[in-house]
Amino acid sequence: MIRPIFCEDDAVVMLDQALLPGKEVYVKCRTVEEAASTITSMQVRGAPLIGVTAAYGMALAARTCLGDETEFLACLEKAGRLLAATRPTAVNLFWGIETMKRFAATISHLPHEERAAALMKEAQRVHAEDTEMCRAMGRHGAQLLNDGETVMTHCNAGALATAGYGSALGVFRAAREAGLNINIVARETRPLLQGSRLTAWELITDGFEVTVIPDNAGAHMMKRGLIDRVITGADRIAANGDTANKIGTYDLAIIARHHGIPFHIVAPYSTIDFSLADGSGIPIEERDKDEIRRMEDIPLTPPTARVYNPAFDVTPAGLIASIVTEEGVATAPLGDSLKRLCGDKP
Amino acid sequence: MIRPIFCEDDAVVMLDQALLPGKEVYVKCRTVEEAASTITSMQVRGAPLIGVTAAYGMALAARTCLGDETEFLACLEKAGRLLAATRPTAVNLFWGIETMKRFAATISHLPHEERAAALMKEAQRVHAEDTEMCRAMGRHGAQLLNDGETVMTHCNAGALATAGYGSALGVFRAAREAGLNINIVARETRPLLQGSRLTAWELITDGFEVTVIPDNAGAHMMKRGLIDRVITGADRIAANGDTANKIGTYDLAIIARHHGIPFHIVAPYSTIDFSLADGSGIPIEERDKDEIRRMEDIPLTPPTARVYNPAFDVTPAGLIASIVTEEGVATAPLGDSLKRLCGDKP
Repeated sequence: MIRPIFCEDDAVVMLDQALLPGKEVYVKCRTVEEAASTITSMQVRGAPLIGVTAAYGMALAARTCLGDETEFLACLEKAGRLLAATRPTAVNLFWGIETMKRFAATISHLPHEERAAALMKEAQRVHAEDTEMCRAMGRHGAQLLNDGETVMTHCNAGALATAGYGSALGVFRAAREAGLNINIVARETRPLLQGSRLTAWELITDGFEVTVIPDNAGAHMMKRGLIDRVITGADRIAANGDTANKIGTYDLAIIARHHGIPFHIVAPYSTIDFSLADGSGIPIEERDKDEIRRMEDIPLTPPTARVYNPAFDVTPAGLIASIVTEEGVATAPLGDSLKRLCGDKP
Repeated sequence: MIRPIFCEDDAVVMLDQALLPGKEVYVKCRTVEEAASTITSMQVRGAPLIGVTAAYGMALAARTCLGDETEFLACLEKAGRLLAATRPTAVNLFWGIETMKRFAATISHLPHEERAAALMKEAQRVHAEDTEMCRAMGRHGAQLLNDGETVMTHCNAGALATAGYGSALGVFRAAREAGLNINIVARETRPLLQGSRLTAWELITDGFEVTVIPDNAGAHMMKRGLIDRVITGADRIAANGDTANKIGTYDLAIIARHHGIPFHIVAPYSTIDFSLADGSGIPIEERDKDEIRRMEDIPLTPPTARVYNPAFDVTPAGLIASIVTEEGVATAPLGDSLKRLCGDKP
């Protein structure tokens, strides 16, 4: 099983996803600064995995948060702000930080060593819970699929985007465990190519067959009748079901609708932001123009070209057939359905 | 003015577009084999420019086609087959070859030197005519635009895709000459990045400002109200207006329609294939999987990943607001309108 994050000795170890598929390198983090840096650099990416990494980051911070209860919690508050500033869109990040802060408040009276150990144990619980959630999403999502279907996906919502197993790709794993034969088409997902680099690597490593296509070939395949369904993950879901995900997801949802192909989101409860009525309030991260301007040393644009590089877009609820969570499958109207499934969770 | 192809001494010289924007290298062709190779390798690309290159290729072949009239024409027939096998989708290729064969039949009685010189002169006429056609398309197309509009384009339908001036990008040149201020957004156009490499280079070289975006950011920009219009070129247009163009054009036409944004094609008469009733008969080239698997030495997928890499897709006439040709602007129903404008041309 692919392990994008795990504990070893006194370190939290992350698979450096920026180097895949060329190199399989692991990064050891012993401080919250190191953990935050893996998120900013996208060595670690994927909304649920960012949430788990943030939880571990808080646990690493706790080791150097000394003093009385007040000092300890203020120190963790500062660590939380550092982690929160890494990336703006995935709400799981803030969820991971808040979960750890709430837990810290309950054990802040313990001696330093015990406090730090308790926070590491809590991060490991968040980690284990993430994998359990993925398995539950997989079971629910697999029931949407029929044997022999070809499913298109975008970006990487896999074991590499979670603490293991995956959200959208977890559905394929669960379908295989249920005996279904599913063909997978991965859009390469420019600019950072999470589809061709990560989804293809992860699925091939796990024994699946996968066909990589340029993002531009999606509608052509749909018109030729080659695609039965689209499934992606999510970075933040508003209360009404509007869904932020990797840039290009909205394009994909539109072309799927144009061809009458159902489009599904798979994401854990921690991705839903009930504080936002709709997707208009979701902040969209703009990333470095060099992601478009060059690949390593190869120039892809003239040096003076202006570039616009938004990392996410928002797909309106109306284009989404269903949202699969660990609590079950939300269907239209998505707002009511999500509230019924997950509205009473903390 | 950008010159993608020109004559120098005894050679036809092409700008190597595969090396842009990093390097500006020119390739000298003295044989039809060399000319054909620049098309296959996409050192030369763009439907109208492929047509002009094919015409020059026939002229180069004529220099080594000896013998009597029958032998001369048979030799040119063979050269035409070589050129026709380079790429299957752009119909301008076949148009360029046929134009030269028809002309050759009228001068095949001349002595060898004169025949060869006449064919080179005819190729230069085709070349000059292409630029004139682009200027005419530009004038017609510019009338569609309003001052201050932002127009999105895909791939490169510019001076680099024609013998100069451009089809879709020629519209921007004509609009500027008419005093309009147009903002241009270029989709990068994976896999070969003709948008970020070529369109951006050509427009910046010519003093335009251009913003490059990943293909995936198109719908996001449209939803934010940042795009007024979409204009692309074409590689082959069926009699009913169905249009083959660079892969991703169909996706773009669908997302434009979803946002109520008009989508226009700009292409010369030589792009229209009246022998095909609709787009279903247009052959779609599949290109080398390495275009997806790697960029120079950088692996982008695991080595065993399956890849599907169609170079073109077909946009149904129903998604196209108008087709701009050198004869005027065809509007819905496009089939009738195209026939009225261009149906009586040879």
